[in-house]
Amino acid sequence: MILVLRKNISEKEFDAIIKRIEELKLKPHISRGEERTIVGIVGDSRTKELEHWEELPGVEEVIRILKPFKLASREFKKENSVIEIGNGVRIGGNEVIVIAGPCSVESEEQILTAAREVKKRGAKILRGGAFKPRTSPYSFQGLKEKGLELLKLAKKEIGLPVITEALSIAQLEKVAEVADIIQIGARNMQNFALLETAGKMKKPVMLKRGMMATMEELLMSAEYVLSNGNPNVILCERGIRTFEKYTRNTLDISAIPMLKSLSHLPVVSDPSHGTGKRNLVIPVSLASVAAGADGLMVEVHPEPEKALSDGAQSLTPEMFGDLMERVRKVAKAVGREIT
Amino acid sequence: MILVLRKNISEKEFDAIIKRIEELKLKPHISRGEERTIVGIVGDSRTKELEHWEELPGVEEVIRILKPFKLASREFKKENSVIEIGNGVRIGGNEVIVIAGPCSVESEEQILTAAREVKKRGAKILRGGAFKPRTSPYSFQGLKEKGLELLKLAKKEIGLPVITEALSIAQLEKVAEVADIIQIGARNMQNFALLETAGKMKKPVMLKRGMMATMEELLMSAEYVLSNGNPNVILCERGIRTFEKYTRNTLDISAIPMLKSLSHLPVVSDPSHGTGKRNLVIPVSLASVAAGADGLMVEVHPEPEKALSDGAQSLTPEMFGDLMERVRKVAKAVGREIT
Amino acid sequence: MILVLRKNISEKEFDAIIKRIEELKLKPHISRGEERTIVGIVGDSRTKELEHWEELPGVEEVIRILKPFKLASREFKKENSVIEIGNGVRIGGNEVIVIAGPCSVESEEQILTAAREVKKRGAKILRGGAFKPRTSPYSFQGLKEKGLELLKLAKKEIGLPVITEALSIAQLEKVAEVADIIQIGARNMQNFALLETAGKMKKPVMLKRGMMATMEELLMSAEYVLSNGNPNVILCERGIRTFEKYTRNTLDISAIPMLKSLSHLPVVSDPSHGTGKRNLVIPVSLASVAAGADGLMVEVHPEPEKALSDGAQSLTPEMFGDLMERVRKVAKAVGREIT
Amino acid sequence: MILVLRKNISEKEFDAIIKRIEELKLKPHISRGEERTIVGIVGDSRTKELEHWEELPGVEEVIRILKPFKLASREFKKENSVIEIGNGVRIGGNEVIVIAGPCSVESEEQILTAAREVKKRGAKILRGGAFKPRTSPYSFQGLKEKGLELLKLAKKEIGLPVITEALSIAQLEKVAEVADIIQIGARNMQNFALLETAGKMKKPVMLKRGMMATMEELLMSAEYVLSNGNPNVILCERGIRTFEKYTRNTLDISAIPMLKSLSHLPVVSDPSHGTGKRNLVIPVSLASVAAGADGLMVEVHPEPEKALSDGAQSLTPEMFGDLMERVRKVAKAVGREIT
Repeated sequence: MILVLRKNISEKEFDAIIKRIEELKLKPHISRGEERTIVGIVGDSRTKELEHWEELPGVEEVIRILKPFKLASREFKKENSVIEIGNGVRIGGNEVIVIAGPCSVESEEQILTAAREVKKRGAKILRGGAFKPRTSPYSFQGLKEKGLELLKLAKKEIGLPVITEALSIAQLEKVAEVADIIQIGARNMQNFALLETAGKMKKPVMLKRGMMATMEELLMSAEYVLSNGNPNVILCERGIRTFEKYTRNTLDISAIPMLKSLSHLPVVSDPSHGTGKRNLVIPVSLASVAAGADGLMVEVHPEPEKALSDGAQSLTPEMFGDLMERVRKVAKAVGREIT
Repeated sequence: MILVLRKNISEKEFDAIIKRIEELKLKPHISRGEERTIVGIVGDSRTKELEHWEELPGVEEVIRILKPFKLASREFKKENSVIEIGNGVRIGGNEVIVIAGPCSVESEEQILTAAREVKKRGAKILRGGAFKPRTSPYSFQGLKEKGLELLKLAKKEIGLPVITEALSIAQLEKVAEVADIIQIGARNMQNFALLETAGKMKKPVMLKRGMMATMEELLMSAEYVLSNGNPNVILCERGIRTFEKYTRNTLDISAIPMLKSLSHLPVVSDPSHGTGKRNLVIPVSLASVAAGADGLMVEVHPEPEKALSDGAQSLTPEMFGDLMERVRKVAKAVGREIT
Repeated sequence: MILVLRKNISEKEFDAIIKRIEELKLKPHISRGEERTIVGIVGDSRTKELEHWEELPGVEEVIRILKPFKLASREFKKENSVIEIGNGVRIGGNEVIVIAGPCSVESEEQILTAAREVKKRGAKILRGGAFKPRTSPYSFQGLKEKGLELLKLAKKEIGLPVITEALSIAQLEKVAEVADIIQIGARNMQNFALLETAGKMKKPVMLKRGMMATMEELLMSAEYVLSNGNPNVILCERGIRTFEKYTRNTLDISAIPMLKSLSHLPVVSDPSHGTGKRNLVIPVSLASVAAGADGLMVEVHPEPEKALSDGAQSLTPEMFGDLMERVRKVAKAVGREIT
Repeated sequence: MILVLRKNISEKEFDAIIKRIEELKLKPHISRGEERTIVGIVGDSRTKELEHWEELPGVEEVIRILKPFKLASREFKKENSVIEIGNGVRIGGNEVIVIAGPCSVESEEQILTAAREVKKRGAKILRGGAFKPRTSPYSFQGLKEKGLELLKLAKKEIGLPVITEALSIAQLEKVAEVADIIQIGARNMQNFALLETAGKMKKPVMLKRGMMATMEELLMSAEYVLSNGNPNVILCERGIRTFEKYTRNTLDISAIPMLKSLSHLPVVSDPSHGTGKRNLVIPVSLASVAAGADGLMVEVHPEPEKALSDGAQSLTPEMFGDLMERVRKVAKAVGREIT
């Protein structure tokens, strides 16, 4: 922590600042410049709030030196975390894992067909929403418990591990009974009560970056899960909100290598939500793998034109086959593999 | 709903689109332009998803005509909603209501002093966080249940109605026992499970605009509460996230008159979170009232330099007194009053 | 300037850094913390680039302490700059100056009527575009030289000083012959060649904040004009670009007091471009004055429905009269005046 | 163009709207819905401003159907534009062209070494700034004319075509004498006077997307150049401004395939400015090629730690060699080539 002092600070104010630092068992290092004096604070001041220091009379600005996340950081753990999903699937290793399936579970036939079609073409995990977060209370909210049952059936019948979202603490338990990965969605990235409860479970959690979240905030939310005891966290970049109107969101491609340099956690990319346009899903999938993503999450619907939600970004099984073929080549070109 | 068709749409595709519209008991109106044909869909297509239509082969773009919120809209209810808070306090009428108090409840002495000081200077409602949403799991998370007890005490001793935040469904009940207004914070603006549960209560709810939320999304979240049966919703503008670095957030001043023209619900402005800088709180408070805000929510701490959270934006009681004096004049200048 | 060193920096790297600092006649102040060593650099390192230091092996981050603008800063000049416009009009004093007129000069009758109508209601400066920056090459680009002549005529006939925009160095001279204030538009805020040339003139310059510009960048652009010798710079907040769709831009109300605290230059607010919606112009004008604006710039057109550009945000003369009446009261409420 | 009429529009207002449409030789198509009447306007209304229609009493909203760019659009020209640069280099064909060199030309030795090093490793075009746009008037502004001479020398000695930026109309001519491609930078993307003049030349122009520009605005700026007679326009994605703080800009990866679907013009990606961090340049370069970029523009400096500008994002020649090796594999994986 560094304190930049006001130009005209009084001696009394200065002394009070030094005293406060010493009271907290930290050590001040003073540098007097021509226009400003700065005070470095030595010792672990991570848990002290920036605002606390800004309050002291005579302090103009407070600058944080240490990154505020710890368990999620690459400094804390040098080697990549590889998360075991079950069925022999692992995320974070050399293989790029493709997660695919419909936005929402809609019927037994739909989810079984989708699972079969994506498995056949190389997907390793089945996605499908049972509880759907919808901007409008009048939109289709998912099949809920019935959707979970259908996912369970698909998992058993087709043999793919399953990821699905929990929107509330009450849903976490139910979801965990069926799912191999619990998804925490972008809108809940800072639902801290939900994160804490997920942190007390052992199931892998895939945490999606909020539409307005910085990478630092995403890592702090991961820290909520990690510090509550669950080490199995997967990060997901799914696009941030900007002023651009031709795409639904702006997928932040640099977040993939940046997060991997800041953290040991695996990073998955979601080009379907990240662009909101079907014809952009394939090129952005290829880009994500080229940039170092450990996985892709792609919406595939057997009949997109009948989808009850997010149809405009869903691929048909044939398009998904095309994606897999092309993405395999890119994975190989960057030294990764997709089996 | 309007469908813009592709330039080279086939006759078969065109017929399929018209058939689909008619199947849904809606009526198509066709306009053939030089470069494009468009189809207007007549009938209440509000609950049909945009994406549904985008899926139809031959459709290039889907344009929504009706606003997606209904109960929150000014068209649904012409006159301003005035929310009864208790103790004779009402938000949404001619009086501008000032809500003040510390970011967090920290101790009996702190909250009692704060309540006394802000009441004396004209605040009509006491704010104070018991459950605090914090980006970092290592930051102070509030006194929780103990904080609620202290708020209850302050309410009884000082006689001000109280607003405090609930972060989860489990906290909603507890908060409702003490608070006169339940706050749903910016990070939970799209925590739909929380909104639904709050909608089943009768307590007034103050819904803060998310950092990345459009006004339409804020109104859709209000719609969740309203459509579940609770008509007592207060909207709060608290700043959105932009690229600017000198302020913590960018308070969207135009949201105040815009929301009031779109909706009948009262709008409160929060210049403390909206700017994050103490010296901006007064000018932005004055601006908010001039722009038509029905209330202000301001952080005041008896000793800001000892605050456990958000100290840098808290006013001292004296500064708050100054704010009240100045804001009264502006309120009067725009035909409102602050008693 | 502060250098944060990498955790595992080698002794050789460390020595090289210290040597480099000393070579530049600056002094290093070293603070060794538990996890990081930081080096404060003492002396005026303002002109050395951040990037220069980031390049040194072993440096993790470089933090700037001094603000990069100098002549524009409040520290450089304590008292408010008051800019003389001519005709006894001054911007930056206690009076709030209202600038009004059509987006574009369209005809003799239009500009004379507009000038007469806005003067009658209290405007002190006439605005009107002769050269118009338009996103599309197919849109009306202004009457150009003919527009300047008409402005000259209006100035003579009606007796109001005039502000109009120059889009290029070639236009600067022509504009300066007629205008009392040269406007540099948002899209040219970082047209450095234009800024330098304007800096070599003596005419007052009104510099509009770019749609994506931080306040610091606006002040750096002002610094271009100031450091080339022209002290007559007026800053203008006109809205920044965000994800919000109901308004054209998001007027950053906190920029008004923030710029005034960072700088001695006057600050004008443009609610017409800042919102893009006619019904928001009055409330946002009131808010701007309440927040401390030294002036307002408002689009007024005698017949907005026939305007060749930006009609949707232009007020009628009657609406402008209403604005003036209301804004006078708010100005008075905050200790300012509008004559 | 579609007009959405107000709910309570009067018959007189309605008639006036229809009359106006007919006066302009356009045809109205009326659709009466349950809550709203909409009027489609048939005929080429592209040049009529949206705002014009918004002004008519009774109109609530105006919706544009046709894209506002024409010459730049894929509909206007189906096949990819391939721009001839000289020396046999062409951008927009199957080969991915790599442009490399220092941010600024600093000395004869620096630019010759840089040119030699990047050519050896596969770059096809040399970049190097002579006129530098700098936020601060106190920063290094480039060697200017001397820089152009050095570029000319490098071009002759090393045999690479050259790209460099022009900041003003006066510089356009000078730059065109030396450069094979004229760069128009992000800050000048809407310097319309500059675009028009560049449009009257025949030299290829590389137009960088502004930090706050939508893709539509970029294409409209391209339209300025195209409609003035210069068909040789190359688009460049170089990152947009968001709230993220770990990267300097957010490279919009989806802009690459989206621009290529909207337009026939070639698209180059600039990962150096797009991220601002050296360690992100390689992964984002790979991603750009995977997403379909026709070229890359990369900063390479023989001794980045001595660079006078933008050092923190420059690669060393060795790192550039690594980039080329890896990017060749990705290009091949997506059916493109880098020779």
